[in-house]
Amino acid sequence: MPGVEAGHPYGVHNLPYGAVSTGAGDPRLVVRIGDVALDLAGACARLAPDLAPLVSGPVLNPLLAAPASTWRRLREAVRTWLTDESVRPVVEPLLAPIGRTHLPFAVGDYVDFYASAHHASAIGRIFRPDSPALPENWKHLPIGYHGRSGTVVVSGTPIARPHGQRRVAGGTVEFGPSLRLDIEAEVGFVVGGGTRLGEPVALAGAAEHIFGVCLVNDWSARDLQAWEYVPLGPFLGKSFATSVSPWVVPLEAFDNARTAPPPRDVPLMSYLDDAALPPWGLDIALEIELNGTVITRPPFPSMYWTAAQMLAHMTVNGATVRPGDLFASGTVSGPEPDQAGSLMELSQAGRSPFALPGGVTRSFLEDGDEVVIRGRVPAAGDRPELGLGEVTGVVVAKPALQ
Amino acid sequence: MPGVEAGHPYGVHNLPYGAVSTGAGDPRLVVRIGDVALDLAGACARLAPDLAPLVSGPVLNPLLAAPASTWRRLREAVRTWLTDESVRPVVEPLLAPIGRTHLPFAVGDYVDFYASAHHASAIGRIFRPDSPALPENWKHLPIGYHGRSGTVVVSGTPIARPHGQRRVAGGTVEFGPSLRLDIEAEVGFVVGGGTRLGEPVALAGAAEHIFGVCLVNDWSARDLQAWEYVPLGPFLGKSFATSVSPWVVPLEAFDNARTAPPPRDVPLMSYLDDAALPPWGLDIALEIELNGTVITRPPFPSMYWTAAQMLAHMTVNGATVRPGDLFASGTVSGPEPDQAGSLMELSQAGRSPFALPGGVTRSFLEDGDEVVIRGRVPAAGDRPELGLGEVTGVVVAKPALQ
Repeated sequence: MPGVEAGHPYGVHNLPYGAVSTGAGDPRLVVRIGDVALDLAGACARLAPDLAPLVSGPVLNPLLAAPASTWRRLREAVRTWLTDESVRPVVEPLLAPIGRTHLPFAVGDYVDFYASAHHASAIGRIFRPDSPALPENWKHLPIGYHGRSGTVVVSGTPIARPHGQRRVAGGTVEFGPSLRLDIEAEVGFVVGGGTRLGEPVALAGAAEHIFGVCLVNDWSARDLQAWEYVPLGPFLGKSFATSVSPWVVPLEAFDNARTAPPPRDVPLMSYLDDAALPPWGLDIALEIELNGTVITRPPFPSMYWTAAQMLAHMTVNGATVRPGDLFASGTVSGPEPDQAGSLMELSQAGRSPFALPGGVTRSFLEDGDEVVIRGRVPAAGDRPELGLGEVTGVVVAKPALQ
Repeated sequence: MPGVEAGHPYGVHNLPYGAVSTGAGDPRLVVRIGDVALDLAGACARLAPDLAPLVSGPVLNPLLAAPASTWRRLREAVRTWLTDESVRPVVEPLLAPIGRTHLPFAVGDYVDFYASAHHASAIGRIFRPDSPALPENWKHLPIGYHGRSGTVVVSGTPIARPHGQRRVAGGTVEFGPSLRLDIEAEVGFVVGGGTRLGEPVALAGAAEHIFGVCLVNDWSARDLQAWEYVPLGPFLGKSFATSVSPWVVPLEAFDNARTAPPPRDVPLMSYLDDAALPPWGLDIALEIELNGTVITRPPFPSMYWTAAQMLAHMTVNGATVRPGDLFASGTVSGPEPDQAGSLMELSQAGRSPFALPGGVTRSFLEDGDEVVIRGRVPAAGDRPELGLGEVTGVVVAKPALQ
């Protein structure tokens, strides 16, 4: 395989999909191998012409609309092309530096879950101090809500600080730039293979509809959110931007990274009961860097609800999924203080600012702050590290309203 | 004008857009005139070739992506074609029976508001009997949330009764078909002319981004909703289906149907303050028919928040809108008991079933029930009636899960 050393986190065990451009060119679909990108349309035109129509546009949606068996066939084909010396003369000219990355799929519906018991408990204690930390429904079903798909942006997009209403001490309501701009480090799942109205996706069939995995930063304006969210949930506190990593790692790349979810202490309804199925926990390690300093390391295996349970729940009422739908785990937070996936938790809602180098402290994000969320499956035994890339964003001031 | 008598609710003062098909043909965009449909692609090809690319597909999105001045130019052109005798030989062959109707736009994001004080108070008393009827934020901002755009369906689509979790008396949680399937009669607004991230739509610019008006039935499973909605809002209780009427009535058709919204008793933030602007209330009368009997007549002019305020609020945080976005008013309920827009209100959450002919009563929908929501601007003085059509649906049992 050209130029990728053994153990590289983007070796042939990974092969994530993305959309890239160079110069003023339009985005093209690629598969990343090492630190270069294989042009998919070019490769399929020469080596798998029947698949070429699925990958010749700027987004993955035509491929996502194909059955999962087609995704797997393409993945196997790419792996062969990158390892079989006989096609090297064809493949090598199709490898190029990665260039600029773009959102590789057109987002249908975007659903955000709330699947970390550690995060939900911490937020419950902050937002609803007079109630139990976990809502009473929390261990019965994966709580979720619809987010704004039109403001899902690719990693690197500057994040304009949102303006909005907030209630301040004394009960006054005022308007202005958010004073509590936060992040939520999440793992996202890209849906493929649509369904028909009234036909749920069963737990056992989830792999036929989960194409791949990405990283998500669900930017959150906590002051806007706290004032608006009763009774219909988060709206403007979340809808201004959601950033995703540029690489969609195929689900198959996680075959040797499955982990058992935590013990469930409330019996599960049959449509959510995964006890007899292969485990859907994923051994993903996240880290969040703020202005160059790693501030927390959230562990994804600590999540109570799995992606398969989220998908089964999301469709159990008969709702369809469409190719390009995105659902995310909700903030990934572990049990330890330095494993929280949001600043709200790290700073105890601003009561305990955390330290950065040089005597600097933070509770929430300031203009100019840069956030990088990285994800990987760590190497273990024979298993090489699997890179999920990163999702980054710099906070910029937004021009004030007239 | 061919065959449309004076005062017809679909005269040249209306000219709604839709998508229709006959036989096995693909959907084509049309303008309704009287009880027939003008083929838009055909008419533009002959009479306004520069507009033809905007209307030659199966959905309005290319037209919606054009500036509002283009929408108005097309509307004026169609009006001329339908009234100018000199083009009659060209136009008449392009008129045909309406045939089967389809969803005339691809939905981007779907946002549902909660803009009736009468409805919000009634629901508050039912769902949150220990709290004030209106949440404390309610008169400061138009509360809204994102719904599922992938399950927005056109009028006439059968509605499969959703299954899901509910908590029953004694605190037990069980799974099954919803026992409290309800409707919400709403007015929807179709968005055109996209915006850029970080650039809100000001109240005064709302007409440049609201293409037209339709009717919405936001089907709701109250038992699922009651169990799931704390803390992140409605999810499966709403996401199984949302029906819209097949005709999008251009905003300009409401020019002489504007009404002042109710007095506001909490001072409005400047971005929501419409005191100095032309009124955005709309004189739309709704009626809901259940199995052939009109059961309620919700008055849209009673809504506290206007469409312009909803759009200004939805974007004040910098969120974009896209051509094809849909936002809806939330349940339209008036102050009187026979003006409620949901069965939850009409039956007092099932405590007071209402009567239908033949000794039949209802609290919530049963399998086989047919719901028709109709809308119109009533005739007044020189103003002819303006038809908004209807949104219908029949409830069908859903096959039980395996």
